[in-house]
Amino acid sequence: MLITLTTDFGYQDAFVGVMKGVIARINPEVQVIDLTHGIPAHDVMAGALTLRHGTGYFPPGTIHVAVVDPGVGSRRRPLLIESEGNYFIGPDNGILSLTVETKPTRIVHLSNPAYQLNPPSRTFHGRDIFAPAAAYLSMGISPASLGEDLKSFVKLRSPVARRDKSRIDGEIIYIDHYGNLFTNIREHDLTGLPRGELTTFLGPIAIRGIAPSYGSAAVGEFVAILNSWGMLEIAANKTNAQQRSRAKVGAKVTLTWKQ
Amino acid sequence: MLITLTTDFGYQDAFVGVMKGVIARINPEVQVIDLTHGIPAHDVMAGALTLRHGTGYFPPGTIHVAVVDPGVGSRRRPLLIESEGNYFIGPDNGILSLTVETKPTRIVHLSNPAYQLNPPSRTFHGRDIFAPAAAYLSMGISPASLGEDLKSFVKLRSPVARRDKSRIDGEIIYIDHYGNLFTNIREHDLTGLPRGELTTFLGPIAIRGIAPSYGSAAVGEFVAILNSWGMLEIAANKTNAQQRSRAKVGAKVTLTWKQ
Amino acid sequence: MLITLTTDFGYQDAFVGVMKGVIARINPEVQVIDLTHGIPAHDVMAGALTLRHGTGYFPPGTIHVAVVDPGVGSRRRPLLIESEGNYFIGPDNGILSLTVETKPTRIVHLSNPAYQLNPPSRTFHGRDIFAPAAAYLSMGISPASLGEDLKSFVKLRSPVARRDKSRIDGEIIYIDHYGNLFTNIREHDLTGLPRGELTTFLGPIAIRGIAPSYGSAAVGEFVAILNSWGMLEIAANKTNAQQRSRAKVGAKVTLTWKQ
Repeated sequence: MLITLTTDFGYQDAFVGVMKGVIARINPEVQVIDLTHGIPAHDVMAGALTLRHGTGYFPPGTIHVAVVDPGVGSRRRPLLIESEGNYFIGPDNGILSLTVETKPTRIVHLSNPAYQLNPPSRTFHGRDIFAPAAAYLSMGISPASLGEDLKSFVKLRSPVARRDKSRIDGEIIYIDHYGNLFTNIREHDLTGLPRGELTTFLGPIAIRGIAPSYGSAAVGEFVAILNSWGMLEIAANKTNAQQRSRAKVGAKVTLTWKQ
Repeated sequence: MLITLTTDFGYQDAFVGVMKGVIARINPEVQVIDLTHGIPAHDVMAGALTLRHGTGYFPPGTIHVAVVDPGVGSRRRPLLIESEGNYFIGPDNGILSLTVETKPTRIVHLSNPAYQLNPPSRTFHGRDIFAPAAAYLSMGISPASLGEDLKSFVKLRSPVARRDKSRIDGEIIYIDHYGNLFTNIREHDLTGLPRGELTTFLGPIAIRGIAPSYGSAAVGEFVAILNSWGMLEIAANKTNAQQRSRAKVGAKVTLTWKQ
Repeated sequence: MLITLTTDFGYQDAFVGVMKGVIARINPEVQVIDLTHGIPAHDVMAGALTLRHGTGYFPPGTIHVAVVDPGVGSRRRPLLIESEGNYFIGPDNGILSLTVETKPTRIVHLSNPAYQLNPPSRTFHGRDIFAPAAAYLSMGISPASLGEDLKSFVKLRSPVARRDKSRIDGEIIYIDHYGNLFTNIREHDLTGLPRGELTTFLGPIAIRGIAPSYGSAAVGEFVAILNSWGMLEIAANKTNAQQRSRAKVGAKVTLTWKQ
């Protein structure tokens, strides 16, 4: 069995290490992989997008734990969702909702104190509730033992790009470590369009065509490229496009083409 | 067997990876977990507090290696401490002293060159002395083989909060990645006090009551909350309390209540 | 089998975690160790130096994957190099060249689509080509199956210090997390020189002698010390020497001695 961890805990403190200790004490055999702990603090949407574009690369049956949880200790519920043979554990704030795309097999409120550290703290359910739930699940404890069934869970809505006859309107939804600007315009949205004739606009920046690689432009020049999420990305060769453009998440991106 | 690593090596360089290589070459089977490598550079007290509040979540018999070691290469001794069935390895500068609370079973000066990389460098005993010691110990090499017994080791003194009839005086001892301000006032110090009537003071900031969760205040507002270390923490809902307050480690925190 | 990963992917995104998912799906048994993911973005030379001074500490037969790859998606080739019983996987941009010092046993162009994610993206060959190649290799797939043999690969030239009768001229080649300044002057370059009589110059800074430890100088004072790479390093006791000196990679360093 395999557990992944995705959090906004960062790398300064021992929060992640302590979660791994809790898991190792319950199930010393289970493998734990960090998806990332660099989600911006409290940014549930960035966590949800990270899971959506990451969890599919893991083996079937993986237990994915996600903790971006500004509501820790309040009445938001701790959840387990089983979907298409995989397991997703985290707070009921939408973080799991973009990666669980079809109707879940089961949704469980992680309410059974027998499978928590007791009493759970007010500030660290990653340690006290989510890590134990994942570890016990990896030991073969049934989802039904972990708490009562629920009928629904909180869903985020990720903004969708719109295409009409003459243009596609999208926006920046994620900015990576390099300053690459990920839009919500999917490769699929470009179907049938003449790629060499496309122009991508971001504020005053206009980019012609779809680049085959970052390096196809001169160093420092912007490119529009289809990225590893299957989406249009605005980047700059060997350069931080976010710093050059000052664009932020939510900035509008438009694609037009010669009619 | 399980080894944990706690250092101020950060994440830019290969120092941590190289320690894991050294361990894998000696004992390919042992599991290694990072507690954290984000201890502020040279901050032995932050390392000691991290160990104190982290190592207890790991399985019995775990080998905890801690390297915040500005004195590397000088005469400070490399240590192994055995205490309550767990093992602690690091420089004799106090970093191990807050997590080893009772009289150790054994204190060993890691002086045997047969269990070191030879000759040890002047600047990286994590690689040359501490990682090999942990790996050999995990293989079943006895503590006595690693060097000669010692009678004592360097102890840090973590500042203690004081309660009298009308107030508790404490201070900020740790600031986490979110900017949450950890004080040295323990939940135990509040015994018998009327929690709703407490006021926490940090400089000009006054916070009424003890919050049940970060989210019980408006976004941006300060709360006083009992945290995952079992201590009083000053935080701000979805906001970096350190940046808002400008407080630093050592800042005084006072609690008063209606008599 | 053991796979190491070295990249400039940083810690914010899920790129590294996704590579580990790809590996786990192909070979759930293989151990993966992060050498570091903190190589400065696009800095192939820093990646090459990190590998050179890191890979030697791992067990024989280790598969080292390195991805600092600004040319991803262009015509630069993905490589596997077998050398002295170890395996090195990465783009053909020189990143592997400083750690592969002798004539390789074999150089393979990783061109077989049967051992890639298909079709490979334009922006993330770590996920689509390099991780699968490492995982299949760890499963026992032969190098020859992964693609066709090559005769040569791109080599970086790391600047070499020069010693003449009265001085050694070198430069800063790497700056670590602490701000320690690593030069390219090797311990070997000092053979026969009177260490107490040496003076190291970095711009206006002059440092007398070779220090036995960082702590042998007063806090904040510069020292010249032989470091864990076997090279001369300019550091400052408990202080960030880079910030104090403003030196950058490429800054000239000169050693002189009394004749």
